[in-house]
Amino acid sequence: MENGLTHMKINIQTKLPGPQSKAILERLEQKNGAYNIDHAYVHSGEGKGSHFVDLDGNIFIDFAAQIASNPLGYNDAAMLRVLQKHTNYTPIKYGGQDFIVPQHLELIDELLKIVPKELNAAFLINSGAEANENALKIACHKRPTAKIGISFYNGWHGRTTGALSLTNSRSVQVKHFLRLPVRHISYSEEGPEELEALIRREFDADEIGFVIMEGVQGEGGYIPASNLLVQGIRKVTKKEGIPLIFDEVQAGMGRTGKWWTYQHHGITPDIQTSAKMLQVGATIANKKWFPKEKSAISSTWGGGQVLDMAMGAAVIREIKKRKLLKNATRMGNGIHQRLREIHIETNAIHHPRGLGLMQAFDLENVKLRNQFQQKCFQKGLIALGCGVSGMRISPSLNITKEEVHEGMDVIEEVAKGIK
Amino acid sequence: MENGLTHMKINIQTKLPGPQSKAILERLEQKNGAYNIDHAYVHSGEGKGSHFVDLDGNIFIDFAAQIASNPLGYNDAAMLRVLQKHTNYTPIKYGGQDFIVPQHLELIDELLKIVPKELNAAFLINSGAEANENALKIACHKRPTAKIGISFYNGWHGRTTGALSLTNSRSVQVKHFLRLPVRHISYSEEGPEELEALIRREFDADEIGFVIMEGVQGEGGYIPASNLLVQGIRKVTKKEGIPLIFDEVQAGMGRTGKWWTYQHHGITPDIQTSAKMLQVGATIANKKWFPKEKSAISSTWGGGQVLDMAMGAAVIREIKKRKLLKNATRMGNGIHQRLREIHIETNAIHHPRGLGLMQAFDLENVKLRNQFQQKCFQKGLIALGCGVSGMRISPSLNITKEEVHEGMDVIEEVAKGIK
Repeated sequence: MENGLTHMKINIQTKLPGPQSKAILERLEQKNGAYNIDHAYVHSGEGKGSHFVDLDGNIFIDFAAQIASNPLGYNDAAMLRVLQKHTNYTPIKYGGQDFIVPQHLELIDELLKIVPKELNAAFLINSGAEANENALKIACHKRPTAKIGISFYNGWHGRTTGALSLTNSRSVQVKHFLRLPVRHISYSEEGPEELEALIRREFDADEIGFVIMEGVQGEGGYIPASNLLVQGIRKVTKKEGIPLIFDEVQAGMGRTGKWWTYQHHGITPDIQTSAKMLQVGATIANKKWFPKEKSAISSTWGGGQVLDMAMGAAVIREIKKRKLLKNATRMGNGIHQRLREIHIETNAIHHPRGLGLMQAFDLENVKLRNQFQQKCFQKGLIALGCGVSGMRISPSLNITKEEVHEGMDVIEEVAKGIK
Repeated sequence: MENGLTHMKINIQTKLPGPQSKAILERLEQKNGAYNIDHAYVHSGEGKGSHFVDLDGNIFIDFAAQIASNPLGYNDAAMLRVLQKHTNYTPIKYGGQDFIVPQHLELIDELLKIVPKELNAAFLINSGAEANENALKIACHKRPTAKIGISFYNGWHGRTTGALSLTNSRSVQVKHFLRLPVRHISYSEEGPEELEALIRREFDADEIGFVIMEGVQGEGGYIPASNLLVQGIRKVTKKEGIPLIFDEVQAGMGRTGKWWTYQHHGITPDIQTSAKMLQVGATIANKKWFPKEKSAISSTWGGGQVLDMAMGAAVIREIKKRKLLKNATRMGNGIHQRLREIHIETNAIHHPRGLGLMQAFDLENVKLRNQFQQKCFQKGLIALGCGVSGMRISPSLNITKEEVHEGMDVIEEVAKGIK
């Protein structure tokens, strides 16, 4: 199959997983420390737009986009050009905060063009979790009196737990990066009041290191924050001088139809993060937030993966050039509309919700959700779970109307099969 | 300059940084959140072996190897072949623990061939810090009674502090991954006794989640552990049933002349990590150590950066094919010998030490060390600091005798200039 092929359609030719995929999956399951596979296939590399082909020649449509991290689908010409431009030089992983490659500045330049002017500096790192780590590090660094941090119920900010607590080397790498206990508040209109109550009853404002929030909760279930919640939290944090961190790892970079979720609410956070569709982790803030001490924040490979950085810069340029923010809004609305119709028609799926290309719905329980997901997979649709018993739809930003309807037809068919 | 050029020599033609480098560095310093640059140049991509060329045409010799993460120098033919093989498919970043690409199994296969048989599973992740995070997560997961973890004075295991404490989503991602307070013990022959004393006086063995150690302390100053230390710690941890984690992020993958530092001492840890020269982070252990629950450990991009994984697999094959472990030992001994000679001749550098291609020496204080480093840089040698006032030498594993002597001549010249 040629990459140039423009029209792919779902085509499941084998029992899943097909024999070639199965051979690899069985060996990997034995040797891999993790086991997280809902979709038993192995990618062949082939594909076009939101369709891809597995090793057994089965064609799927992808409503998961590599956990919302694939901005332009499979084998996009602009992405391939980046690869083809970078074949003459290795290593591709530089010690990028100590040793500089031009792609580092290129990506930061592109990134700072799409954030508010006050956020005029960025620090690149290896993952979304590490981007959030650095957001809380720079917040706490400026808050030596902090005793707690605040996040939200059902929030998700990564999986790291504390390598720094094991590290006992130079004090610059440790001091002021408090490991704080964290208190959770409600991700609802009550959130701002709960924050105020904490300040009134338990803590001085300067004892709160930061508030960190997602504009649309991702893992938590694709729940968009309300205006009242976001504006209320911004108001309290501004009044009390508490740093507000927006975690834009999954929802940012245009997925919701604006570059960043906070732009739906007309506010600017003090610090924000990005990753996934950016292809690199990033902590973004006004320069004054970043520690001036050399090596206070760093990373061997941060700012050093040449191809990831070149890809990230190209992604930003392509989103602009092809007006993909508008496409995310339109296609997201189309998906939402179809979800509502399927909900009303079948009563098999519930609570359709979302913003742009972060759309979701619930099944009645986890078991039904898992069955729903597997039935979709058998019919050639890839989609991930979220929240308690939800399914999320987060395709690439350049998904077409035809691709949306092809995938939604599968969801409709499966929903009808339930009721 | 052609990549095919086989003989490069140090050649500094401009004031450093040269004008092209300077233009980028000034903009980056303004926009980058971090400032860690000891060597004011910007890489052009050109180079050969341990030499590289900056944007201004200056040729340097590299004794730092991208913070010990560049195994085969610049523009190695085998590494370029990997790039040239991967130009037809994107994205290059897959959601690799949920969605499988063949390169994931390829790298795990190569990796498990070079570790002891008991360590029969690996989990790939984005950085050395994240690899250590997962080592302590899987250790604690099996130790629900743990109250503390143990690391060593001057140990270095990464910079992450606790994104998981902010995360409040599904309990599988959190439960049993205790955030432990950590106690430090001495990185000396007293270490094992201190560990035993802790067990005798303060904690039951099952209250200790893990002991984590480096076989050669990296950031801490390139200090090789003694046989007595390593064997003593292995003996106590085995007797008491405490998981022993070896952090092989910097020293592993052949840098010390063996694949892993613990092989110098005839022991096997329960869990080990790797990163840097592997091009990917990895947590390696017997399969029984890894949680069976789906999604208990995961990562969007872990096991998903196609090029990094393909590079890592090629690195392992090339190290074997070219007998680079032997080269690391030989070249390391040559460096050590020269350091001793320079020490004796000049008395300007002190305490030459190291194992294989992890060699180091001290200056009398931090200020002198920083001056020494800058003088080396002005003469075309790249080398990093370590410990309090040390300089480390950690070139690529395929460094040649001629390259070693060219770089050591600079160190000798600078040392002679001091005294």
